[in-house]
Amino acid sequence: MKLPGQEEFDVSSAYENVPTGELDSGPGSGPSPSGSSDTESRELGVTKDPLLFIQLNELMGWPKAQEWRETGSSPVSPLLDLGEMPPITRSTPLHHRWVLFEEKLEVGAGRWSAPHVPTVALPSLQKLRSLLAEGLVLLDCPARSLLELVEQVTRVESLSPELREQLQSLLLQRPQHLIQSTDTRPCWGSAHPREPSHDGEAPLKEQRQNSLRQKLPPGAEVGAVLAGELGFLAQPLGAFVRLRDPVVLGPLTEVSLPSRFFCLILGPPTLGRSYREMGRAVAILLSDPQFQWSARRASNLHDLLAALDAFLEEVTVLPPGRWDPTARISPPKCLPSQHKRLPLQMQEATSPSAWRRAGVEHRHNHMPHAPSPELQRTGRLFGGLIQDVRRKASWYPSDFSDALHPQCLSAVLYIYLATITNAITFGGLLGEATDGAQGVLESFLGTAVAGAAFCLMAGQPLTILSSTGPVLVFERLLFSFSRDYSLDYLPFRLWVGIWVATFCLVLVATEASVLVRYFTRFTEEGFCALISLIFIYDAVSKMLSLTYAYPIQRPGSPAYGCFCQYPDPGGNESQWTRTKPKGRDDILSMDLGLVNASLLPPPECAQRGGHPRGPGCHTVPDIAFFSLLLFLTSFLFAVALKRVKASRFFPSVVRKVLSDFSSVLAILLGCGLDAFLGLATPKLMVPKEFKPTLPGRGWLVSPFGANPWWLSVAAALPALLLSILIFMDQQITAVILNRAEYRLRKGTGFHLDLFCVSVLMLLTSALGLPWYVSATVISLAHMDSLRRESRACSLGEPPSFLGIREQRLTGLMVFLLTGISIFLAPVLKFIPMPVLYGIFLYMGVAAISSIQFMKRVQLLLMPPKYQPDLLLLRHVPLSRVHLFTAIQLACLGLLWIVKSTPAAIIFPIMLLGLVGVRKALEWVFSPQELLWLDELMPEKERSIPEKGLAPEYSFSASDSEDSDLMYQPKAPEINISVN
Amino acid sequence: MKLPGQEEFDVSSAYENVPTGELDSGPGSGPSPSGSSDTESRELGVTKDPLLFIQLNELMGWPKAQEWRETGSSPVSPLLDLGEMPPITRSTPLHHRWVLFEEKLEVGAGRWSAPHVPTVALPSLQKLRSLLAEGLVLLDCPARSLLELVEQVTRVESLSPELREQLQSLLLQRPQHLIQSTDTRPCWGSAHPREPSHDGEAPLKEQRQNSLRQKLPPGAEVGAVLAGELGFLAQPLGAFVRLRDPVVLGPLTEVSLPSRFFCLILGPPTLGRSYREMGRAVAILLSDPQFQWSARRASNLHDLLAALDAFLEEVTVLPPGRWDPTARISPPKCLPSQHKRLPLQMQEATSPSAWRRAGVEHRHNHMPHAPSPELQRTGRLFGGLIQDVRRKASWYPSDFSDALHPQCLSAVLYIYLATITNAITFGGLLGEATDGAQGVLESFLGTAVAGAAFCLMAGQPLTILSSTGPVLVFERLLFSFSRDYSLDYLPFRLWVGIWVATFCLVLVATEASVLVRYFTRFTEEGFCALISLIFIYDAVSKMLSLTYAYPIQRPGSPAYGCFCQYPDPGGNESQWTRTKPKGRDDILSMDLGLVNASLLPPPECAQRGGHPRGPGCHTVPDIAFFSLLLFLTSFLFAVALKRVKASRFFPSVVRKVLSDFSSVLAILLGCGLDAFLGLATPKLMVPKEFKPTLPGRGWLVSPFGANPWWLSVAAALPALLLSILIFMDQQITAVILNRAEYRLRKGTGFHLDLFCVSVLMLLTSALGLPWYVSATVISLAHMDSLRRESRACSLGEPPSFLGIREQRLTGLMVFLLTGISIFLAPVLKFIPMPVLYGIFLYMGVAAISSIQFMKRVQLLLMPPKYQPDLLLLRHVPLSRVHLFTAIQLACLGLLWIVKSTPAAIIFPIMLLGLVGVRKALEWVFSPQELLWLDELMPEKERSIPEKGLAPEYSFSASDSEDSDLMYQPKAPEINISVN
Repeated sequence: MKLPGQEEFDVSSAYENVPTGELDSGPGSGPSPSGSSDTESRELGVTKDPLLFIQLNELMGWPKAQEWRETGSSPVSPLLDLGEMPPITRSTPLHHRWVLFEEKLEVGAGRWSAPHVPTVALPSLQKLRSLLAEGLVLLDCPARSLLELVEQVTRVESLSPELREQLQSLLLQRPQHLIQSTDTRPCWGSAHPREPSHDGEAPLKEQRQNSLRQKLPPGAEVGAVLAGELGFLAQPLGAFVRLRDPVVLGPLTEVSLPSRFFCLILGPPTLGRSYREMGRAVAILLSDPQFQWSARRASNLHDLLAALDAFLEEVTVLPPGRWDPTARISPPKCLPSQHKRLPLQMQEATSPSAWRRAGVEHRHNHMPHAPSPELQRTGRLFGGLIQDVRRKASWYPSDFSDALHPQCLSAVLYIYLATITNAITFGGLLGEATDGAQGVLESFLGTAVAGAAFCLMAGQPLTILSSTGPVLVFERLLFSFSRDYSLDYLPFRLWVGIWVATFCLVLVATEASVLVRYFTRFTEEGFCALISLIFIYDAVSKMLSLTYAYPIQRPGSPAYGCFCQYPDPGGNESQWTRTKPKGRDDILSMDLGLVNASLLPPPECAQRGGHPRGPGCHTVPDIAFFSLLLFLTSFLFAVALKRVKASRFFPSVVRKVLSDFSSVLAILLGCGLDAFLGLATPKLMVPKEFKPTLPGRGWLVSPFGANPWWLSVAAALPALLLSILIFMDQQITAVILNRAEYRLRKGTGFHLDLFCVSVLMLLTSALGLPWYVSATVISLAHMDSLRRESRACSLGEPPSFLGIREQRLTGLMVFLLTGISIFLAPVLKFIPMPVLYGIFLYMGVAAISSIQFMKRVQLLLMPPKYQPDLLLLRHVPLSRVHLFTAIQLACLGLLWIVKSTPAAIIFPIMLLGLVGVRKALEWVFSPQELLWLDELMPEKERSIPEKGLAPEYSFSASDSEDSDLMYQPKAPEINISVN
Repeated sequence: MKLPGQEEFDVSSAYENVPTGELDSGPGSGPSPSGSSDTESRELGVTKDPLLFIQLNELMGWPKAQEWRETGSSPVSPLLDLGEMPPITRSTPLHHRWVLFEEKLEVGAGRWSAPHVPTVALPSLQKLRSLLAEGLVLLDCPARSLLELVEQVTRVESLSPELREQLQSLLLQRPQHLIQSTDTRPCWGSAHPREPSHDGEAPLKEQRQNSLRQKLPPGAEVGAVLAGELGFLAQPLGAFVRLRDPVVLGPLTEVSLPSRFFCLILGPPTLGRSYREMGRAVAILLSDPQFQWSARRASNLHDLLAALDAFLEEVTVLPPGRWDPTARISPPKCLPSQHKRLPLQMQEATSPSAWRRAGVEHRHNHMPHAPSPELQRTGRLFGGLIQDVRRKASWYPSDFSDALHPQCLSAVLYIYLATITNAITFGGLLGEATDGAQGVLESFLGTAVAGAAFCLMAGQPLTILSSTGPVLVFERLLFSFSRDYSLDYLPFRLWVGIWVATFCLVLVATEASVLVRYFTRFTEEGFCALISLIFIYDAVSKMLSLTYAYPIQRPGSPAYGCFCQYPDPGGNESQWTRTKPKGRDDILSMDLGLVNASLLPPPECAQRGGHPRGPGCHTVPDIAFFSLLLFLTSFLFAVALKRVKASRFFPSVVRKVLSDFSSVLAILLGCGLDAFLGLATPKLMVPKEFKPTLPGRGWLVSPFGANPWWLSVAAALPALLLSILIFMDQQITAVILNRAEYRLRKGTGFHLDLFCVSVLMLLTSALGLPWYVSATVISLAHMDSLRRESRACSLGEPPSFLGIREQRLTGLMVFLLTGISIFLAPVLKFIPMPVLYGIFLYMGVAAISSIQFMKRVQLLLMPPKYQPDLLLLRHVPLSRVHLFTAIQLACLGLLWIVKSTPAAIIFPIMLLGLVGVRKALEWVFSPQELLWLDELMPEKERSIPEKGLAPEYSFSASDSEDSDLMYQPKAPEINISVN
């Protein structure tokens, strides 16, 4: 016999962020690339008890119901009856159902309520206990039909033969009627032209059944509870039956699944609704996993009552004066973790350390803090890389076979659209930042080539390569630097790339990736915040620069008026006048007494051979404000569409599409608006044919160009800076992707990834394509679109996360499609630049609002009373939180100042300096405070456990509340989202 | 001895929307204009028990604490200590406190948590019961100090003298230390330079105390609970003490108020935290109003245990598997109504019909459905008016004396700003709609005169007169009608006004206001929705019309180019050239070979005596898009600022100001933006001096003007329509203002109000000022700013509403200030029209989103799963709800079509037609459905009660849940806000 709670434990483990391997298999069990089906079934827990669907039907005696019915009838016009007239008052009995949470049949509205946490009054539970103790308890009852069951149940001494007869017929007939009246609601009382026939209603009922049944996992069983007050009964009648073999009890319950439990709670009419409430109590008991476990295994009444008492021991009580018992509590986001309910010895057996680790890991949800073996130094040159290749090689075949699932197809479509949106935006900005040294075409080509290559070779094929924000920022600085010193940009850039590849190779050889553990949240957030701010600043300043290019014409503005002057035809004015009195323009010109000038707009003027003259010739009116409108529109629409996901409107599919494709839709909207008005807004520059954007260069960048030879050596300096940036960007993304909560099974590839990036760096530099690093947000979106989830996701239960379809095929497909899209490039010239700036602003804002740092900055503006109940606020005094935030703000300010000086290009070193600042913070804040505000650095973590940083010390001891919140699973969450 | 719950009943009645008179005094007690102090004290319930503030301190034995302390210490840099270093782990005991809800001291963070619903495990309550049964219960203990109390409490047999000694010293010394460590948190373990001295910390502590104490009502008492595990105890020790005279127990609790109860729950260390939880259990018990009532009156242990059992009878139980006991439940919006907890005979005594009526009235929160005596027909000519005058006359002196409260001053400021915003917006729009026949100046003058007169004479002086939306719409139609037939508008309008006044007088004479009861929610919402839609349509169409007035210049647009042509100086070109080669313009002109033309902008050209020539002369670039930006900015800012109230940022005062003045601020922002860029946007037209906006008319409108004499008779027809409109608008506002939930004491004045409106109609028509009716939103805002509320509004308890300061002075002041503001009018010419359109759009959107109809329209777009848990959805099938919504939409569509035809002016009759449609709906929907979707019409209501529409039939019977929700008080809510 298994211990109670064991099954529940398996289920709840699906919610925890412990890698399954840690719980189920020992560390010795290596990777088993046999496919996912095996693991899936194990995680679903085939051996556990079937799910129990519980339904409570209220029984009502005939006479009373009849009476009710008559009073409730009302004349209804036969003309306007829409076939769904509800019974007007309480002549229909009440129905409740439970899977995880309670649902109540809203009789008037004819539908089930939203699931809510079941609550019951304590006396009902106590009365139930005494009724069970006196009543009939049949365990492993051999009945095979409702008839047999009813006969067995009513065979009690207290019932006279007549009463038994009456009760039996009620139990046998009534339910059938009940279901009909609730499921199909025939319009009694109304002169309904279509008589509710049993045959006519069947399909509807069938349909309803199916929709519920679909949500229940296969093998689900039913617990049927009948409760109510019957006028003809003289004393209470309670029966609890566990059927030996589950039997379909006719139309007793909504779904015709076999019933395992059957309860009868009946009695004479009393004050209040005690019998129905007792029925609800027994249903709630059965819906409790632990009681259900016991009830399935109880061998006698004593076991059953003991289980009830155990339940009572654990219930939470709400005081009557402060909580309205009739208020419905909506289901909590996470179910309470059942491991706390296990008996003590059981808790010991299931590796408490695993649980604790889960808690710790969860809080530091940045990176696995128990250093994973992949991040241990081997000590050999390229040792990490070799290990990575070996680990990955064994999974390589499955990386393709695992992709054979329809879900992958939709993932490809989604990520493809996101990728080309990125390619367009970054390409457009890159083209602008580098005066066309690169552009959209390079962006598409580079994305396709680099992405596909990475997908085939990388350690973590789920990451999606993109020319991300930080690299774009660096490239912009590099370009302005090379322009300031009149360097030939692309050859210079080639050498930077060569050096970066070399440095990265050195980093791979020396296994530098293990240093990643020193990047705490403080560093990540500083990195993210700076880059986001640069995004926001750039977007806004580019937008504002348009108002200089297209000045606004104020009333006193001198830029007014423009003529079209024709080349003087040698004094012979009649020549021109004679040849061209065609249009109204010319007539007007003549009317105005103009000799060799007209009022043609500049483009037409030039076309006709004239010269536009005058201060207003270069101003295009309305463009500045229209660009601003486009900018705001695309930004606000991207934000609004992203939020559609959380709204109540539209089916979830529609909301998901609108939200997932928010950027694409916002760009399309902006283009449509622009095309509709047809103004000459600045557009994306796209070469007309398949050749590099910079005129006159081939695809291969010449190694020196116009630069002196020593520049190839000097390029090592910016390359060093870029290497730092790429290392940080690449590894932070990799760490986030490999977080324990995503449950990747195929291991990490930090070293291999960096190696691939360095090879691609060489390739893209030689071809003059953008540089590529793994992009956090798009990679996380990729993973998210590949989630495997359990199907039992109905009736208030959150679907449980099973893992990710780890494979290489989706990424490969995405980049092949991107490659094909190069030929779509000419279409892209219809995209106005302000729209892209708007999307750029959106990216910056989205990135900066996703980090905890911003939450703390917001705290600065909130009175303590209104602050959200953040865990960190429960544990760290507000002044210390503010101090930490202030230090972060100061660091950010310093970085910004450096960025604004000519020394801007060294900002990667400043970013690295954040690690040092974080180290210095250990003198300011206690380890406990840092644990809550940030996380601990490796040495600190090693040194503390002996002193008691184990969970029982650091938080269990402080308070039971937090420790429990700690254990609660959290949906994988994006913390950094630059790009 | 009072019955249990009586006091609580009084308190909770403060939440209910029953006029106090109905509960406390019989119908015979007439108005007592003796001022508000008497009523206030009665409503506050002077005779009820004082409020109990309960605090739980955990006691910890020394040795254990010491041990904890040592392990928890950590080196902290003395340099960076900011004086608030928290104790690092659980060496400080836990503290909880209760007033209504529980708050917990977050030890790490050093602050109290947000209030939450207290929950406790059932076993703790049961263990507490047995501990109390065995322990020491001292009722009416005569102790006068902590020392005496401790001596009495420790005088138990089970304690040996040494233990007693030890315990006594712990109880006497420890608390002092505790408070210090929690309140001021000296940084033990750190080398804090400033030693925490008792004197130095005192002010801080004092300050904290005061802030809490301020929130407690005078006379509050304390219940102190000490609980914990003490290593030296051999067996549990429980004591429950009720002090005969409340005593300040030194620094035992946070506030030094006298303690009434003192509990000690101590025992030897066990597994779990049972003693602390038992302490929480006793504190929760004491915080329960009913238990507290019993505990204050218990004469022996038996009474106390009976009260505990009664408490247990009523608790709600949350199953352990579905609710995490450590999750904090935030306080419900409304406390459960205590009347349900009264014993049965008690419920009978307190007039169940009053409760029921409250429930019914609440649901139909539009108007009091039990027809109030003021809406009964007297049957005599002007009978209602005479009754109104009599009723109001008795209150007249108090209408001024009641205003002597500082709150009235802030109300004046708030309503003044709202009023002039309205005057500006409506004045500006009126001026535009009537081609300047009226304008801003008329709007200010009319508002001041009509408003002040109304405040002095009206039946309901709280209403604020305004030229509201419907009347504006009608005036627009009237003007376009008179323009179409080339009538002299103002004289025609004068006759319309004369007729309206006559018709209204007839309505007053015939007591037509009693018909107001036929306006159900269906009518109100149709009215509101149509007007709102007209607002929205007008705002958008006016905005778009600006793009015609200031066309956008597209690339191919012909409107390009403009010269400044000077009058031909008779062929003598040198004359002009000689006199003016001053500016660059002229030099450029010469350079271009222009003879007698230059490139000056049109205004300057005209100034210099030239003529602008060319197709582009009348186009002002950039204005169209800039106007659109201003329009969107003012709209979005008004919306955003309105929402600031619900945000977490900023102190509540700031949020209130930002939200209350959202329109004013949005207008200011728009003006600032406009002034900053200095573009020639269209501005509000304001006459330069104090004279009518229409040039050439005096202040008095001539009775005939250019119109034929018979038009004065024909004006009766539009006047009839306008009378319907004014009657509906005025009376719907009056009904909303007189809703029972606002608890007005000085009675209604429907007839008198209508009489005043008709007199003012005459006056304003004669002077050519706008027409005025009571405005719903601004009147509600006025009432809201005059709310009297109970002060005990802290710690999770919502402040209880006591009534409204009904008086005439605030309104009078507002209108006097408005009158003075006429001289500010010249400043108003800086307001761009697009900003006003934006505010207009905001008003329309705000009005239409406030009605239930829109909520139901939204339901059409929501999948059932995501629909909010509206009560009406629990009772009416979704298809029926949708049918009702569809009928409303169809009505609205029909009204809109009528409005768009030449017959637009008859739309008031169509609005009245809604009453007929509503009547017809009785054939489509059952009364119960209409009860939920709308409300019942008078006859129906009269006819149904016998058939069982009484609450026990219509909803109590259906389910206990709703009936309870019905009883829940609802904050006064604005349903219609056309303003």
